[in-house]
Amino acid sequence: MSEFDIITHYFSSLGAGENVRLSVGDDAAALRVDDGFELLVSTDTSAAGVHFPEDLFPEDIAYKAVAAAASDLAAMGASPLGMTLAISLPEHDSLWLHGFSQGLASASRDFNLPLIGGDTTRGLLSMTLTVMGQCPEGQKLLRSGARPTDLVCVSGSLGDSTFGLSMLQGNERGLDIDFEDQEYLLSRFSRPASRIELGERLRAQATSCIDISDGLLADATHIANASGCKLVIDSALIPLSTELVASVGRARAIELALTGGEDFELLFTLPESVSVPDHCTVIGFAEAGEGVLCDGVLKRGGYDHFH
Amino acid sequence: MSEFDIITHYFSSLGAGENVRLSVGDDAAALRVDDGFELLVSTDTSAAGVHFPEDLFPEDIAYKAVAAAASDLAAMGASPLGMTLAISLPEHDSLWLHGFSQGLASASRDFNLPLIGGDTTRGLLSMTLTVMGQCPEGQKLLRSGARPTDLVCVSGSLGDSTFGLSMLQGNERGLDIDFEDQEYLLSRFSRPASRIELGERLRAQATSCIDISDGLLADATHIANASGCKLVIDSALIPLSTELVASVGRARAIELALTGGEDFELLFTLPESVSVPDHCTVIGFAEAGEGVLCDGVLKRGGYDHFH
Repeated sequence: MSEFDIITHYFSSLGAGENVRLSVGDDAAALRVDDGFELLVSTDTSAAGVHFPEDLFPEDIAYKAVAAAASDLAAMGASPLGMTLAISLPEHDSLWLHGFSQGLASASRDFNLPLIGGDTTRGLLSMTLTVMGQCPEGQKLLRSGARPTDLVCVSGSLGDSTFGLSMLQGNERGLDIDFEDQEYLLSRFSRPASRIELGERLRAQATSCIDISDGLLADATHIANASGCKLVIDSALIPLSTELVASVGRARAIELALTGGEDFELLFTLPESVSVPDHCTVIGFAEAGEGVLCDGVLKRGGYDHFH
Repeated sequence: MSEFDIITHYFSSLGAGENVRLSVGDDAAALRVDDGFELLVSTDTSAAGVHFPEDLFPEDIAYKAVAAAASDLAAMGASPLGMTLAISLPEHDSLWLHGFSQGLASASRDFNLPLIGGDTTRGLLSMTLTVMGQCPEGQKLLRSGARPTDLVCVSGSLGDSTFGLSMLQGNERGLDIDFEDQEYLLSRFSRPASRIELGERLRAQATSCIDISDGLLADATHIANASGCKLVIDSALIPLSTELVASVGRARAIELALTGGEDFELLFTLPESVSVPDHCTVIGFAEAGEGVLCDGVLKRGGYDHFH
């Protein structure tokens, strides 16, 4: 069996989906986009040593890669249709592949993304996922629609993921962290929650939306720039997990939330008239101007793999 | 500018397309699939040292990668909609990126595939292209429809590409090859022709179709297995370029055509009642049974990166 055969072996049932007309096995896969819907497409690469530590469990490597890619669909308000996986692998290690395939299968279920195609190559460990979703025409969420007086909102809690990664990298050994808190914070890095349903709910409600992958300040800047307005954020309002605050204290937790990457929560703007969805928090508002004003200081920041 | 900014810089006009609603710049791209059409998707990785020599011109690296991916759309009878590119790059070399972007832009035009999204990562040189196309529902070409008495046909000429690669690798220095023939054969490796229009023409006509990426015998075996019938091929009928025959003689040319990979021509079966399209050649027929019978011998073969 080739690597891809081994991976698809775990997908005998998961390659199927409501809109999948043809899955792995021919020259291309076929999907049905519903009448009146647009196709949304995003491609995301996760490479060992860049996006995750090489020794992360293969289950988590797969899960996190799918979660990261799916997060872009959530940010557009898209409902998932399917995904393709191109994977570069250093060697044929069937135990590793077994774990990887199980993580991929779990994520495929959790994010409702059947695996419809892919490719395997020899090389350093790296995955490129292309995720496809659909959204009713005219309802997709862009970065560019925020308007003055809109509320700035965020889902879940921020900063956990970047701290989880720091623990994995062995940078936090000086801290005395409760075991359950550790587990929670690690899982926030390796098993990001799905915000697909929230994205669907925000269709035709949010004026702008982005997923937090580069850090709150950096991604807020993307919305501010694309929308041509200023986002004013009060860091005291940023949602923080009790686990993160218990582990590092409130001041560092806020710093992690502002600049840490890969939370994969949604940052969005809502007209004042729209009610804030459950598990979401208002952290500021939009006004005329440009850039992101946080606690009275014009800021930029976040995590960038290259710069 | 990031690498991807540099690449998209060359795409200011090429990111647009008839069915592109949103191109590079937000969390996902948006495409319109026409009513009554299905979406076809294929993902293809091209890695340096595996799919092409590392020192191939960057223009050709890009062009060939797009051509290889687009070939899967042609094989399904799909009309191109757009593509995403995930590229792993060892270093920021702006001359290389300039050449690469120009090749990508040429291929984007030639294959009618606007670049609608992508990602860049640090790493060894490798590209993953996801190509999307559309086909009227029920008209896509599969590997599985060949029936006894169908004619087995192939487009263009075979064997040129694998010989072009062999020249590039310096394996053919003992041969005295005409300069123009060399140029032609190298271009057949690095600049495969588009068979998109042929694929569209074969919709609702061909009973099966595949692109020749692993070699004629290997890909014919895919059709035979998927269709549950036998393909009978007469090697004397295989179309060969005058350039290839002049360079290596007829016997080796046939061998290259049978087992060489990456021709990216279409291999398809037609009911006897359908006329053979221009620039296509009948090389055999289908009959009851299994496998591929070539010149009376049951054969398998072709190029496989892993086995």
